[in-house]
Amino acid sequence: MKHVILKSLAVAGLAAGLSSAAFAQPKTVTIAVSIPAATHGWTGGVVYHAEETAKQLEKLHPGLKVIVKTSPDGAAQANALEDLMAQKVDALVVLPFNSDELTNPAREVKKRGTFITVVDRGLKDASIQDIYVAGNNPEFGRVAGKYFVDNLKQGNVVVFRGIPTVIDEERVTNFEKALEGSGVKVIDKQYANWNRDDAFRVMQDYLAKHPKIDAVWASDDDMALGIMEAIRQSKREDIKFVLGGAGMKDMIKKVMDGDKMIPADVSYPPAMIATAMNVTAAHFYGSAPMRGTYVLNAQLITKDNAKDHYFPNSPF
Amino acid sequence: MKHVILKSLAVAGLAAGLSSAAFAQPKTVTIAVSIPAATHGWTGGVVYHAEETAKQLEKLHPGLKVIVKTSPDGAAQANALEDLMAQKVDALVVLPFNSDELTNPAREVKKRGTFITVVDRGLKDASIQDIYVAGNNPEFGRVAGKYFVDNLKQGNVVVFRGIPTVIDEERVTNFEKALEGSGVKVIDKQYANWNRDDAFRVMQDYLAKHPKIDAVWASDDDMALGIMEAIRQSKREDIKFVLGGAGMKDMIKKVMDGDKMIPADVSYPPAMIATAMNVTAAHFYGSAPMRGTYVLNAQLITKDNAKDHYFPNSPF
Repeated sequence: MKHVILKSLAVAGLAAGLSSAAFAQPKTVTIAVSIPAATHGWTGGVVYHAEETAKQLEKLHPGLKVIVKTSPDGAAQANALEDLMAQKVDALVVLPFNSDELTNPAREVKKRGTFITVVDRGLKDASIQDIYVAGNNPEFGRVAGKYFVDNLKQGNVVVFRGIPTVIDEERVTNFEKALEGSGVKVIDKQYANWNRDDAFRVMQDYLAKHPKIDAVWASDDDMALGIMEAIRQSKREDIKFVLGGAGMKDMIKKVMDGDKMIPADVSYPPAMIATAMNVTAAHFYGSAPMRGTYVLNAQLITKDNAKDHYFPNSPF
Repeated sequence: MKHVILKSLAVAGLAAGLSSAAFAQPKTVTIAVSIPAATHGWTGGVVYHAEETAKQLEKLHPGLKVIVKTSPDGAAQANALEDLMAQKVDALVVLPFNSDELTNPAREVKKRGTFITVVDRGLKDASIQDIYVAGNNPEFGRVAGKYFVDNLKQGNVVVFRGIPTVIDEERVTNFEKALEGSGVKVIDKQYANWNRDDAFRVMQDYLAKHPKIDAVWASDDDMALGIMEAIRQSKREDIKFVLGGAGMKDMIKKVMDGDKMIPADVSYPPAMIATAMNVTAAHFYGSAPMRGTYVLNAQLITKDNAKDHYFPNSPF
């Protein structure tokens, strides 16, 4: 019976004009991708890029199945990982909500022999991961600082910090180091939690306190939106530009269009999930060693290269 | 005329039973790979993996052309990069002989708008590279040290250093750090230039000086071969094992076969050229950000995972 089926498949293949090579069994691999749901802008981008890349990779590798699973919070994501163990998955690509809740569930998945790729936020035990893909936070600050030195040359800058974290500290420390010896001075810096409304309020405070502000390091595109609104309402004209960060679609569009207030951005791409999925698939398809740590560049996005960072169909 | 040709192509396509999707123009990309010729074991592995991966990637991405060019020395490699500029290449993957001779030629290639991936040995100006792929030298030492702590537990170890370089320093420092607080003692360490004959002589010296040696950190598979020969000639039976490094085929085979003197190895894979070619191709095929630094793990290779590191057709 088996023989008969194979034979008729062969006939169908010949009829369709396919070579016998098409009958080589494609390697079957299942990759699960566990990510936060689109609860805010950046994670919305993560979801978009994960789904697009799943399609691209499945097309590229016949036999590959990619399951993208979004979770609304850390506890739900921990449960999602437990559910995955019931299925047979060869690899897990996980962007954890947080290290505390996801470290143990990820360790359990690993114990089943699953290949683990961690993205952006590390787990508490690095030995769990086979691959780690992350953005470059020190460089994010350095690139931004260099932009002020090269383009403002001298003047007063106000700085927005995110949430007190290692990430924020690395960014701000390297921003200030990049300004050393230049005519660019930081006259104020406050936390605004990577939040648009908080940044709006902090910017109102800066505008009230400082009669002359030459430029703003928003350090984040969500915060940049709140800052822009505060500047608009104040009708102040001393501020030459605002530099955000992350690569939000609306901001990249402004850069592309030559908006004078948003002349540039610094990348911290939600598409890093796509990078992680690519290198994970490459582990299974091909013979290259892929286990390691992949730190993506923080790139200065200007009018010249903005189109490489613009994804009009992404929500972010 | 153009119309007629397209029409007859369409007819040929239908005759072959292909769907119209097959007519979507595949994206044309040319990647040049510039590597040292197979002047010694490790670079022989680099050449093998570059050529194998070129075939794999060309099969995966219709429209991709990969040109692998080997050079016998740094000056020849610099000339090879100049020749490449006459051709239209979209990307260059380069494992430089050395930083001094290759930095300027690589910069010139970059100026033409070519995407640059640097492998293993960095250039003097990191801003030239879009991607950097390298081994993890501190981890290479740490993993080896941990192996001695876990398996020898206590005893006298002699250490072989390579050539006085940053790489060697990072390896040895982290090896010794991993031994701290354990019963494993380094009783001697000498340079043997990652060379088999030098290691043979240094091991003869160690054997003459030290009446009791429990294990040897060769730190390199070429050196391990010389060391094994010196031990064999001495007929000494106090040495329990020799730990090399790199992933040489003959050594991996011994690990697979359960050779008591070579129970493990630490990876520093020549196949990192394949990793570099994979991530470079992914930059062109797909939308994931790939610019960054990819540091591959130094992995402990034991009987359990040796088959993943064994390439019987490779010269290394």
